[in-house]
Amino acid sequence: MPKAERELIARIRKMAGYPGAAPGGRVVAGIGDDAAVLRLKPGYEALVTTDLMLEGIHFRRDWLPPRDVGRRCLLRGLSDIAAMGGEPIAAFLSLALPKGVGQEWVDEFFKGLLKLAERHGIVLAGGDIAQSPRGVLADIVVVGQTPKGRALLRSGAKAGDGIYVTGELGGAAAELRRSQEGRGRGRARHVAVAEPRIEVGRALRGVASACIDVSDGLSTDLSHICEESGVGAVLEAEAVPAARGAELEMALHGGEDYELLFTSSRSVPERIAGVKVTLVGEVIRGKKMWLVDAGGRKRELGAGGWEHFRSQRSPH
Amino acid sequence: MPKAERELIARIRKMAGYPGAAPGGRVVAGIGDDAAVLRLKPGYEALVTTDLMLEGIHFRRDWLPPRDVGRRCLLRGLSDIAAMGGEPIAAFLSLALPKGVGQEWVDEFFKGLLKLAERHGIVLAGGDIAQSPRGVLADIVVVGQTPKGRALLRSGAKAGDGIYVTGELGGAAAELRRSQEGRGRGRARHVAVAEPRIEVGRALRGVASACIDVSDGLSTDLSHICEESGVGAVLEAEAVPAARGAELEMALHGGEDYELLFTSSRSVPERIAGVKVTLVGEVIRGKKMWLVDAGGRKRELGAGGWEHFRSQRSPH
Repeated sequence: MPKAERELIARIRKMAGYPGAAPGGRVVAGIGDDAAVLRLKPGYEALVTTDLMLEGIHFRRDWLPPRDVGRRCLLRGLSDIAAMGGEPIAAFLSLALPKGVGQEWVDEFFKGLLKLAERHGIVLAGGDIAQSPRGVLADIVVVGQTPKGRALLRSGAKAGDGIYVTGELGGAAAELRRSQEGRGRGRARHVAVAEPRIEVGRALRGVASACIDVSDGLSTDLSHICEESGVGAVLEAEAVPAARGAELEMALHGGEDYELLFTSSRSVPERIAGVKVTLVGEVIRGKKMWLVDAGGRKRELGAGGWEHFRSQRSPH
Repeated sequence: MPKAERELIARIRKMAGYPGAAPGGRVVAGIGDDAAVLRLKPGYEALVTTDLMLEGIHFRRDWLPPRDVGRRCLLRGLSDIAAMGGEPIAAFLSLALPKGVGQEWVDEFFKGLLKLAERHGIVLAGGDIAQSPRGVLADIVVVGQTPKGRALLRSGAKAGDGIYVTGELGGAAAELRRSQEGRGRGRARHVAVAEPRIEVGRALRGVASACIDVSDGLSTDLSHICEESGVGAVLEAEAVPAARGAELEMALHGGEDYELLFTSSRSVPERIAGVKVTLVGEVIRGKKMWLVDAGGRKRELGAGGWEHFRSQRSPH
């Protein structure tokens, strides 16, 4: 490994609290061995999720401050763990940097990532560093745990179940629109404050029949539940909780919300772990998704809404 | 996610044996959920390792056949699990592909990776796919398990321990030299046949005081053990088991051997799990590494040998 990369790893270890601070608790061994050693609670299963972010495809360095790129990187992984009803334990980061990315950018990136990690009580337990031929590349792995057999899967939705979402949707998309019209600073605000719904996910164990996080947009993520569960869905347009400034299309297809979308046959409280929960529709037999408007008119809802929506804008 | 990527994921799921074949056993849920769910043996800890491979930095598409790129990707991760004394459970792959990489290349890549996975009884349980702005990029994560408190770390070597290596070293470096001189086909043969020393690693639980896999070269990997354990080392040049055609420098600094390097205060058999084990030196007090030649002359051994060696050749 070249000297520059060794030095960077030494700096990351220091920022992440090594030696001493980080290993301990559930992380028995972290950065500095062939593999990290993680200790799960007895009777728990391991959860593993990976998320790849590429400059020019998933973000632009001139649009998103480095601190938010780092935060978003971990946010995506933590949101996946939340959607499984899990508790996060540790993160692993593979980072490839092109020449010309300075130490300040890298330090800010890690500050954003490590601050969110600390907030959720997890450590950066490993990863890899390389030089990139072009563009920043970050692949994050988050490992978590759930009690045996109680992970929230996408495949358990049944006809008759209610469809619920946490929080509000379309906020990130509305922000991007304002930015494109020269009235804002891009998505930075949403990604800088959105929190992974870890506590909500834990509370949904035994309550939700299926669960996913809203990262690609409500319509696309609902289609994943429908596909994996072999069911269809009806959404009530009026019921979808749009964020301030977000049109219905943004709430339906916008993405990057980091809320949870779940189904349940049980009665679900209006708030879970302090977060608003809204009934937005019902699981039905079949394979199709439908949207019913305020006047009762029903039209088929495509999962491709997001791609269509996205194709009109630059990489964010 | 664009259509091309969705189709690729569907093809990977099929190649990896989904649905049905893969989940089961220790992998409760795999590709197709927010996170994979892995079930460890009771009383075991989780091991997690990541390895990033970039075209142009770690391999060249015109030198290494796609099947060997895929095999090497997983081999690196499995070798890390072996070095911890672990049993592998599942692999996760994040893959970014530039335009112009055809379906045939991708299929061959996965064939190489999945064949090695099958051989070691593990499944591809998740990952991510994206378009790369330039060059193929593959980040592999391997998750394994060891009995609680028995992982082989780099940090346990003590003055007086013997230093051992499995198999033979320098084979990959010798192959590369032959290739550079127009007498071979690059590293393909070694990477196509090298096996991660999983069984040896398991047998070393309670025997080795420290362990690492030889991926960067004996001198560099030994320096990692010395740093993490706070010790020095003396190697006997005559004892280092060089592969056929490999000079001493290649065996000392070549890298990509995928053998295990370990220390032990106990008596170690000449073969473990069918693999030759050679005593090559001794752990000493201090921080330095020394090489003693056949005539008894002692010179300091630098961990930088590999970088120096590597700087003379093209990316492999």
